Amino acid sequence: MPSGIPRTIGDVRDELELRFVKGHGTGNDFVLLPDPDGDLDLTADLVRALCDRRTGIGGDGVLRVVLCAAVPEAAGLAGRARWFMDYRNADGSVAEMCGNGARVFARYLVDAGYAQPGRFHVATRAGLRLVEAAVDGDVTVDMGPPRIIDGPGAPVTVADRDFTATAVSMGNPHAVCFAGDLDVAGLRRLDLTRPPSFSPVDFPDGVNVEIVVDRPAGVAMRVFERGVGETASCGTGACAVAVAWAARRGARPAGAPVEVEVDVPGGGLVVIWQPETVLLRGPAELVFDGVLRRAEAHDPVG
Amino acid sequence: MPSGIPRTIGDVRDELELRFVKGHGTGNDFVLLPDPDGDLDLTADLVRALCDRRTGIGGDGVLRVVLCAAVPEAAGLAGRARWFMDYRNADGSVAEMCGNGARVFARYLVDAGYAQPGRFHVATRAGLRLVEAAVDGDVTVDMGPPRIIDGPGAPVTVADRDFTATAVSMGNPHAVCFAGDLDVAGLRRLDLTRPPSFSPVDFPDGVNVEIVVDRPAGVAMRVFERGVGETASCGTGACAVAVAWAARRGARPAGAPVEVEVDVPGGGLVVIWQPETVLLRGPAELVFDGVLRRAEAHDPVG
Repeated sequence: MPSGIPRTIGDVRDELELRFVKGHGTGNDFVLLPDPDGDLDLTADLVRALCDRRTGIGGDGVLRVVLCAAVPEAAGLAGRARWFMDYRNADGSVAEMCGNGARVFARYLVDAGYAQPGRFHVATRAGLRLVEAAVDGDVTVDMGPPRIIDGPGAPVTVADRDFTATAVSMGNPHAVCFAGDLDVAGLRRLDLTRPPSFSPVDFPDGVNVEIVVDRPAGVAMRVFERGVGETASCGTGACAVAVAWAARRGARPAGAPVEVEVDVPGGGLVVIWQPETVLLRGPAELVFDGVLRRAEAHDPVG
Repeated sequence: MPSGIPRTIGDVRDELELRFVKGHGTGNDFVLLPDPDGDLDLTADLVRALCDRRTGIGGDGVLRVVLCAAVPEAAGLAGRARWFMDYRNADGSVAEMCGNGARVFARYLVDAGYAQPGRFHVATRAGLRLVEAAVDGDVTVDMGPPRIIDGPGAPVTVADRDFTATAVSMGNPHAVCFAGDLDVAGLRRLDLTRPPSFSPVDFPDGVNVEIVVDRPAGVAMRVFERGVGETASCGTGACAVAVAWAARRGARPAGAPVEVEVDVPGGGLVVIWQPETVLLRGPAELVFDGVLRRAEAHDPVG
């Protein structure tokens, strides 16, 4: 921890006794904060302290659960969605959308009795998202339209291997690398500790890199997220991979959607490519309910 | 996650609705499981699932809180200690003792009303340990006697720097490396991603390596734990550092104990070197109370 003593929850909260739920979707994990009336002052410091995996609760991000009517930026959506997903990254920054986050958010709404199982809209900073929470625990979210970048492919080097990647945009940039000579065991053995290299001409804002192998019923992938490193799951990455893989095999959604099973390190996802959009389906689990302790009488660490 | 889909809590538990407390001592974090009567079947699989930082609760280990009288291996200590600290490493293995773990364990006992503030014994697999839980939140634990290994010092290379380390045993082996030319900022900048190198003749079972710089009121250290990598805190490491540092300056406990402030990345500790033993003092915090959800009706991930 070269950055020194971290700010702990005791440093940033005062009289707070905070109830929360911890959940994950294929290993992407989130602290859910029920705050229907928008009473909580969710500062960047508090988000960072909550997401600290040792001195806090731990998570890739925070999902504040607030009524659209209680949030000025979502009030205009209140007629079409009841709940606003206020998503924050673990570093405290505000984020627009997160596919696995939206799936866990929807699971929570149904579990808490805030929504009925089935289809409903969730409001996000990227607009309305349609979700479908099945009674079996799976949640599907509309991830929006994909865009395959045509061209000769982009050179990408990752795990000491050279690829010609298919570039796909899911709103954010992806470089999909097909490792046709590897099986699932070979994919698992790859050393992804070092970041991929690519040309800034191809990806001026950086890129998420997926390595993909065939499986009997779809594909398996690993992902190196830009600015983060390898992660257990990436919703937009799974969508980009499925679309690039299906397009390579000549499959495009016409009358019927194209369905691809995508295994990520944290579990199994299904991507449904429709003519106008891509759906992401998979498990969303609520692991535990918690109550943060009030700051104690003694001084916090540090 | 090259090892593939992890076993999640849903995979290993059945009808379990488990209450727990999460706590940490200078960033060493633990899942506390109150189980006075020893009813819980704490398997290695369950420990691993609980300690998973994404799909479980997350922690360096589990501290099961059980009455000595309910544990065959601790029944002989029941006359001198009421509670047994059943410590497990995050990998599911059984461990004898953990200094920061014992401090968090004692904090929990007092908080739960299972012990009065002040001094009391805790039973561990390494025998009885005396702890003292102050009302201000600090907890002190008797870490047992140190042993400075005399000799010319052992060559150790870490962060591209060559040291002549002082070898100290606290039951486990430590190589204390003094970086006299660095200040605290320089210590923080060191790259500890690569493991230290040393001679297997000096440390046949491997070694925990500490890098130490002077501070106005003591020392600051970083630690590379054998088999783990850099950690936020290491109780035995702090003791080894304090003893080696004091001995180098000619201080040995005689009538009065020698007290050294040791800053670790996760906070501040105080080591009290007495003629017969070493005490470790510092904050121990309980962060949140939780209840694991019952496994849901749907199949677990994977």
